[in-house]
Amino acid sequence: MTDLELEQSGNRQRKRRSDGERSREAILQEAARLATVEGLDGLSIARLADAVGMSKSGLFAHFDSKQDLQLATIETAAGIFAEEVTTPSRDGATGLERLRLLADGFLRHVEGDTFPGGCFFASVAAELDTRPGPVRDLAISVVNSWQQEILLAIQDAQAEGAIDAAEDAEQLTFELDAYLLLGNAGFVITHTPDPIERARRAVERRLDLVLTQPAVAAPLT
Amino acid sequence: MTDLELEQSGNRQRKRRSDGERSREAILQEAARLATVEGLDGLSIARLADAVGMSKSGLFAHFDSKQDLQLATIETAAGIFAEEVTTPSRDGATGLERLRLLADGFLRHVEGDTFPGGCFFASVAAELDTRPGPVRDLAISVVNSWQQEILLAIQDAQAEGAIDAAEDAEQLTFELDAYLLLGNAGFVITHTPDPIERARRAVERRLDLVLTQPAVAAPLT
Repeated sequence: MTDLELEQSGNRQRKRRSDGERSREAILQEAARLATVEGLDGLSIARLADAVGMSKSGLFAHFDSKQDLQLATIETAAGIFAEEVTTPSRDGATGLERLRLLADGFLRHVEGDTFPGGCFFASVAAELDTRPGPVRDLAISVVNSWQQEILLAIQDAQAEGAIDAAEDAEQLTFELDAYLLLGNAGFVITHTPDPIERARRAVERRLDLVLTQPAVAAPLT
Repeated sequence: MTDLELEQSGNRQRKRRSDGERSREAILQEAARLATVEGLDGLSIARLADAVGMSKSGLFAHFDSKQDLQLATIETAAGIFAEEVTTPSRDGATGLERLRLLADGFLRHVEGDTFPGGCFFASVAAELDTRPGPVRDLAISVVNSWQQEILLAIQDAQAEGAIDAAEDAEQLTFELDAYLLLGNAGFVITHTPDPIERARRAVERRLDLVLTQPAVAAPLT
């Protein structure tokens, strides 16, 4: 091979590799969307291939097995969730700010229709809860990280004196997460903003009970 | 045919009919269990036939179509839920008693492992939310009746003066239902009593805030 041929071959290879990465990314984005409708297990390779305009064999070239595809789909959904919800919350200067950004970010993420079936992890957790294996374990670990993120924000807010230190942080995490998840489930069923608004109100009302300083200062008399 | 032959034929027919009803009932009980694991759509006829010890064609003789099986499965699950949760709650003499019986009955139903995937309706609602059609509509209508049952108990408790009349009954319904559903989801994932206990505590704490009379009378001084 001449240098030119070598270079052209290298370019083609790079191009091929980057096309491959783009397709893999495109497949996984579509797989994450479809999984919130069809389920992660019900993910039809034929429909997925169709949705991204590839042949079934072309699609399979990107993944070693259906399980490999499922695990990569969960990782993609986790990346999207981090980008839309958890990473922006870290801009909060205090634990309380982070907590509010997490709750608000979650509800915006649901309302924003990133996934047709609402929160990807609520959707797949309900599907996979009874099916042991690495796919379930990975999905559950993302759900656990989410709850940890809320818990840490609460604990920081307690250390900073913004939330009553006597409050049971794990119980508060449970209750706030409960509102957010029913906000999600209700929105997916009704497609009205009502459940999102109820969840928002529930979070604020619950926080009002534990804040050491009221959110709105009483007017001076 | 002689009278005896007629009678024998009638007996056989009655026997056949009642065997048929028993099998249909057995199939649907198993279908409801399986649906909380495999999903209502993922319900494999082959596995269902296997679980009840019938051939696939024998099983299909009981149902006109897969949709017919799915609708009948939802009705069976609704019957079980009514028997274990809503019907017993109607023994409550007041709205507040009915409300506590509903919450407690729901958590016992989940803990009792009636269905391996926890609450049948939480499980199938998450699966069907994005799939329009009569199966989804029937499942959603059962979910709505459940929320109505909670709402009516709250409204009665308000009319009876047990719960603060100023409280937004629909918002309170949302919050109590949220605790119960996360109790269910958490129990199915962890198989520990912890999420059930958190849900129970959340319900009691939330009710304490709105009761016009404290649950435990202050000791006389």
